[in-house]
Amino acid sequence: MIPRIDSSKLAAAKDRQNQLLKIPGSLGDLEEIGNRIGAMQRTDRPSLGRGAVVVCCGDHGVTAESVAAFPDTITRIQTINFLEGGAAINQIALVNQAELWVVDAGVCGDEIARHPRLVGPRVRQGTGNIARESAMTREQAQAAIDLGRKAARRAIDAGAQILAAGDMGIGNTTVSSALTAALLDLDPDLVTGRGSGLDDEGRHRKVRCVEMAVCRARQILGDLKKADPLDVLVQLGGLEIAAIAGVYLEGALRGIPLVCDGFPVTAGVLVASRLDEGVRDYLFAGHQSAEPGHAWQLRDLGLEPIFRLGLRLGEGTGAVLAFPVLRAACQILAGMKTFADIGM
Amino acid sequence: MIPRIDSSKLAAAKDRQNQLLKIPGSLGDLEEIGNRIGAMQRTDRPSLGRGAVVVCCGDHGVTAESVAAFPDTITRIQTINFLEGGAAINQIALVNQAELWVVDAGVCGDEIARHPRLVGPRVRQGTGNIARESAMTREQAQAAIDLGRKAARRAIDAGAQILAAGDMGIGNTTVSSALTAALLDLDPDLVTGRGSGLDDEGRHRKVRCVEMAVCRARQILGDLKKADPLDVLVQLGGLEIAAIAGVYLEGALRGIPLVCDGFPVTAGVLVASRLDEGVRDYLFAGHQSAEPGHAWQLRDLGLEPIFRLGLRLGEGTGAVLAFPVLRAACQILAGMKTFADIGM
Repeated sequence: MIPRIDSSKLAAAKDRQNQLLKIPGSLGDLEEIGNRIGAMQRTDRPSLGRGAVVVCCGDHGVTAESVAAFPDTITRIQTINFLEGGAAINQIALVNQAELWVVDAGVCGDEIARHPRLVGPRVRQGTGNIARESAMTREQAQAAIDLGRKAARRAIDAGAQILAAGDMGIGNTTVSSALTAALLDLDPDLVTGRGSGLDDEGRHRKVRCVEMAVCRARQILGDLKKADPLDVLVQLGGLEIAAIAGVYLEGALRGIPLVCDGFPVTAGVLVASRLDEGVRDYLFAGHQSAEPGHAWQLRDLGLEPIFRLGLRLGEGTGAVLAFPVLRAACQILAGMKTFADIGM
Repeated sequence: MIPRIDSSKLAAAKDRQNQLLKIPGSLGDLEEIGNRIGAMQRTDRPSLGRGAVVVCCGDHGVTAESVAAFPDTITRIQTINFLEGGAAINQIALVNQAELWVVDAGVCGDEIARHPRLVGPRVRQGTGNIARESAMTREQAQAAIDLGRKAARRAIDAGAQILAAGDMGIGNTTVSSALTAALLDLDPDLVTGRGSGLDDEGRHRKVRCVEMAVCRARQILGDLKKADPLDVLVQLGGLEIAAIAGVYLEGALRGIPLVCDGFPVTAGVLVASRLDEGVRDYLFAGHQSAEPGHAWQLRDLGLEPIFRLGLRLGEGTGAVLAFPVLRAACQILAGMKTFADIGM
């Protein structure tokens, strides 16, 4: 059970914030960010040291429906690339004091060579095609969540004071659209975008595929908003999305600030928030993605994005990019003089 | 004369950007940021080390018109606070690897004690009341610009690879509104906000004051869009705004990336861009302020803000907050693998 943020600690942080040598409110969203992290750390002088990003990887049977602009093989190539340091997220993590961990939740192809930052073993090679069958079994969904939890534990035990997940999985925006449409009870057309570059016809095919998947899940589970969220994951999920849910569940259990990335990561966060509502207390939104469903997810979670840079890469890039903003918000609350300090 | 960015170097950076192991465009605004800094550094593998922020301080005679919510004495208190490390900008600079310099361009009251980070001597104590008289002489305007230039030179010679200015001056949003209305030929009502917390009546008074100032300047100089920008500064400026213009002029001359902060800083940048158009090549916008005139300034400069966090504190806070984003954009371009690297 995730502990809720202590409201008295939040009040104490707000109290100090309002005594700082500035006009109350003049630091905009930074003030609430600092106050909330103060409450999580049970201090009115918060600080954030090193962070971590857990990039969760998996393949998707739904790519058989021609909904992705790139071949499945890219998932495995990129998973190895994360371990070798050549991806975008490696660069952002490097300059923003974040360690990178990789979870192979369900990548297709040969096992990936052991690596101190690789968390496995994978649950299975890819999911079922959600347009026509369930993605995985309940045991597999739970195992994938547990992989994410394990990676988060390792990251936190290694010193991470702030955590995000990243995603890699060709086809995972289709799955994220299905999960988002199901959990928020929205028309698939509203929450289905171009992913990594579909044309109009491709997007239309993707919308139909999401409709089929959601319709199939509804026939099995009934009202998807009221169904067991683990069952929704079983029907419509991805293995890396399940692992992402695990990362946020474990991070919240440990009481540290958690930053959401783009559409697939926030799909995992939505699942986590349905499994345990307490996770919401620890969330921040790094950016708002170009994918249309992301805004709906953020609205449901009550989050305002720090950036709107038009990112649509995934990997956790938009989340880790926000780590320095959270650090600055903490340092402001901890380090600024108050009116009393200067005798006013 | 500020050198323009070398278009062949920009093309080379774009070329590498498009070969990186990602979908072209998927990193949104980060791609252009990295490309432009690459062009400034004449490499397709840019990097940004330490930065600096030059906080320019000055008082304003126009506060006699009751257009500011705080007393003039705050300017001097905060100028000293910057040197002692207790302000918001000190905290943001600390966590974002930026040195802080302070320019006393025209603070009222006793001389501020010598300090290795303080650049002076001040040009005069405060400006004239722009609603009724010119702010300063041409010699004083030039001297204040030169103070900003001197501070920028020191910061860059000390190793800063990225630079911003900050502002401190009770009354300076009134002056910034006047400069913005004059240089962009806009209705004062459009570009005049609540500053540090005016109520409706206070804002109305402030709009009238800006109208008086712009009308007075127009009687002396004629069409303000076509007038010598130094003369506009003489009539409507602030000493710290002039120093800010100097910071950006010198930074652009040295060819390094420059980040705009909020409304008063961007007023100084507007003046700089009128004195030498070349400065525009080196600009990035940190954030969009809650002050309504800021959006107009950014539009004129062709800049898209990295953040919209509702900041309205000044001091350079919204600029230095963006330094890590520019560093990440450089590291992405420099450090990511290309498709060729993995044999694709």
